[in-house]
Amino acid sequence: MGCLVRLLLLAFLMPGLAIPVPPRPKALSNLHLSTSFTSRPSIVMKYSIQYIEQKIDHFGFNNEKTFKQRYLIADQHWRKEGGSILFYTGNEGDIIWFCNNTGFMWDVAEELKAMLVFAEHRYYGQSLPFGADTFQDPRHLNFLTSEQALADFAELIKHLKRTIPGAENQPFIAVGGSYGGMLAAWFRMKYPHMVAGALAASAPIWQFEDLVPCGVFMKIVTMDFKRTCPNCSENIRSSWGAINRFTRNSTDLDWLSKALHLCTPLKNAQDVQHLKDWISETWVNLAMVDYPYESSFLQHLPAWPIKVVCQYLKNSNLSDKELLQNIFHALNVYYNYSGQATCLNMSETSTSSLGSLGWSYQACTEMVMPFCTNGIDDMFEPYLWDLKTFSDDCFKQWGVKPRPSWITSMYGGKDISSHTNIIFSNGDLDPWSGGGVTRNITDTLVAIIIPEGAHHLDLRGNNAFDPMTVLLARSLEVKYMKQWIRDFYASVRKKD
Amino acid sequence: MGCLVRLLLLAFLMPGLAIPVPPRPKALSNLHLSTSFTSRPSIVMKYSIQYIEQKIDHFGFNNEKTFKQRYLIADQHWRKEGGSILFYTGNEGDIIWFCNNTGFMWDVAEELKAMLVFAEHRYYGQSLPFGADTFQDPRHLNFLTSEQALADFAELIKHLKRTIPGAENQPFIAVGGSYGGMLAAWFRMKYPHMVAGALAASAPIWQFEDLVPCGVFMKIVTMDFKRTCPNCSENIRSSWGAINRFTRNSTDLDWLSKALHLCTPLKNAQDVQHLKDWISETWVNLAMVDYPYESSFLQHLPAWPIKVVCQYLKNSNLSDKELLQNIFHALNVYYNYSGQATCLNMSETSTSSLGSLGWSYQACTEMVMPFCTNGIDDMFEPYLWDLKTFSDDCFKQWGVKPRPSWITSMYGGKDISSHTNIIFSNGDLDPWSGGGVTRNITDTLVAIIIPEGAHHLDLRGNNAFDPMTVLLARSLEVKYMKQWIRDFYASVRKKD
Repeated sequence: MGCLVRLLLLAFLMPGLAIPVPPRPKALSNLHLSTSFTSRPSIVMKYSIQYIEQKIDHFGFNNEKTFKQRYLIADQHWRKEGGSILFYTGNEGDIIWFCNNTGFMWDVAEELKAMLVFAEHRYYGQSLPFGADTFQDPRHLNFLTSEQALADFAELIKHLKRTIPGAENQPFIAVGGSYGGMLAAWFRMKYPHMVAGALAASAPIWQFEDLVPCGVFMKIVTMDFKRTCPNCSENIRSSWGAINRFTRNSTDLDWLSKALHLCTPLKNAQDVQHLKDWISETWVNLAMVDYPYESSFLQHLPAWPIKVVCQYLKNSNLSDKELLQNIFHALNVYYNYSGQATCLNMSETSTSSLGSLGWSYQACTEMVMPFCTNGIDDMFEPYLWDLKTFSDDCFKQWGVKPRPSWITSMYGGKDISSHTNIIFSNGDLDPWSGGGVTRNITDTLVAIIIPEGAHHLDLRGNNAFDPMTVLLARSLEVKYMKQWIRDFYASVRKKD
Repeated sequence: MGCLVRLLLLAFLMPGLAIPVPPRPKALSNLHLSTSFTSRPSIVMKYSIQYIEQKIDHFGFNNEKTFKQRYLIADQHWRKEGGSILFYTGNEGDIIWFCNNTGFMWDVAEELKAMLVFAEHRYYGQSLPFGADTFQDPRHLNFLTSEQALADFAELIKHLKRTIPGAENQPFIAVGGSYGGMLAAWFRMKYPHMVAGALAASAPIWQFEDLVPCGVFMKIVTMDFKRTCPNCSENIRSSWGAINRFTRNSTDLDWLSKALHLCTPLKNAQDVQHLKDWISETWVNLAMVDYPYESSFLQHLPAWPIKVVCQYLKNSNLSDKELLQNIFHALNVYYNYSGQATCLNMSETSTSSLGSLGWSYQACTEMVMPFCTNGIDDMFEPYLWDLKTFSDDCFKQWGVKPRPSWITSMYGGKDISSHTNIIFSNGDLDPWSGGGVTRNITDTLVAIIIPEGAHHLDLRGNNAFDPMTVLLARSLEVKYMKQWIRDFYASVRKKD
């Protein structure tokens, strides 16, 4: 794959980037109602939208400027006596969208007598430190780091304890998924005085340096297709050659553009590379959201979408033309489940979300995750991880250089055993599980595996089609949380 | 006390500020020999001076500049088999001076088969990020924070593990005193993957916000004088009124200047305030360095210097003149033990050290330590802690505003029980013990009390005049360190 294009693609591997940003409320009324995007329209999420003034730079004193960080609060089920506060450590996107896709917190609120807080990550959604100038240059982007985000969370918790009567003496528990799961885990590691524990769902905290093999991610994507039907991954593997053979002249390009129903016809080699990256990203996204029921996480999709996709890719011995026509039908499942699109838009998942800018910068600075493919253990064209090229591309794009070993210096890499009270949950279907913690490290740093789970399925709301394993995972998660809450109150009583 | 002057004084409460900076080696040869400043000239400290390129800003990517951080290494007693690495988390001064005053590490090196590393704190000694411009303005000072310093330590440890064969699989243990003790504790809290444990000697990690009463520090200073002889503290308490009565006109001022043998005669009210701050600081410094043997920590002093000072202040019912003449003799013990000074220089402890600039800035940003006196529980003129005035003075002096609650947000205040493997040692004579951890928090967060100890006496080299309690403290410290080392190797074996 072309490296610069690949770089752009990497910016989208983290979910919540290629996402439709919900329309911004123009007048900020303070009470909002949303219905869950899950198949449970009966669940009503009632929250209020709040803002806190945060220092733009927690780690220096030369800049005293502040920005408004948005957060959501829901307290229907909160009890001042013996209650708890679930604190969603927002990741790279609009917090309302995350709130709507984290039904788990809503489902357990009553049982945990919990207040729910959803904190938006700086530089995403409405929490833009410099308004329209936020993404202008490296100077304005300088304060987009995980450390600053964690400091925002810490200051927000202090603020809540100070301002909400009854909150001061209650345990906070961090909850997050994906990058937000990393933040939840890191928050417990770095600020254990702020949260009694953390649920880090699908958090690839080891997808850095050489902590895990760079090929593991795409290998899991491949497995997801292969397990559905072996020909499916084989056909995808063959498709790259077919595309290459069908892009040698303009007649071929025309045919291919039409066969794939592309909105914008392919014109040159660069477009072809873009096409292949876009298709790869589609398979990756499908692997992440291969949920057991109809859902609308990255796109509106049928239940078990990979099964549906693979129905079009189950035959062997196809001609190039047949194969590519089938690839179209497979893509069409992802991009046109509603059946209303008249063509497929290659830029659809890559430019619609503000979050993509922020994550692309983060991937070029702290969040340097090496990915590679070899075309043998996976169904993709071979791609070597090359830090130098990656770094050069980052410098071209953002004017910054990545620091690939910083996250490990900061958060400990694999050496995290002295921390406590973190649940790492991972689904076996989720490609991010390759960089996750999938074995217990100690009695209080525990791993939960969901064999039929895609990307943080456990954080989604209960659904009639949930496999038993995710129900078990959620119940285990609640059990641990209750233990943390009990321990918290026991230690408070001991102090009194 | 005048607030601005008081602010300056606060900048000197932390030892290592009013210290003579050793001459800088002009040609950087790589091997240095020093003799300890303790009364053990037989101990030869042999170390090499090294430098590491550190990012000026670990927490942002817009600034890729680096600076040279200095550190010292001594490996005479280091063993690659089963050894350890004691890592001194440098505080606010020249690292060679700290090295020379931390005989404890040299004394235990053989027993722990330990390499010794002394890391200089950025913005002190030779580790100046912007050379001559380092203290120019808030922009250049922006990277002087405890978080940046801890990140330097983490990167240095990574560097040592990478570059010293045998170091990679050995336990590092953080050791520090005073502010350096706070750094040692915080380093273990924030980077437990970097150090197996920390010895935090005389580390007042609770001297922030209202974690301890603001008067506790000066109360302990007072106790130190009172316990030597009750009239001593009473005479000091009376001296402020005597000074006030002797500064009403120029004749009085002349007399007082002569009686105190001041190098620069007092001229106005501002000078008088400066005089009182300078005298207060002297009593404070004496309380910190009230060691049981002749020493040269802040000044060259006799054994138990407060006893010597109080010999001049033991009589009661003195006239103002007699009292002030005796105050001179008391001060003379501190400033002129050698007997060679012809006059007392009020600026002596406040301008000779580069470090004072750095600490004054740190006290105005993160290290906001509230101090107060009431003249009843202590022997000083009443002084109310007033954050507003303090903040205004900081802004005048440095162009920055303090964030008094940030350290608590960052490092947890009193809620640190989830951390492990930290020894907090405190001497009862040390005024900083008031803000220290003086009770066990858990089995692995332990407090060691040294009843006859002044400021981090335990970190000083063995001395024939050491009281039994400091010998016991040191031996307990070594016992804990050995346990951490054993646990480290046991956990390595478990992984293999």
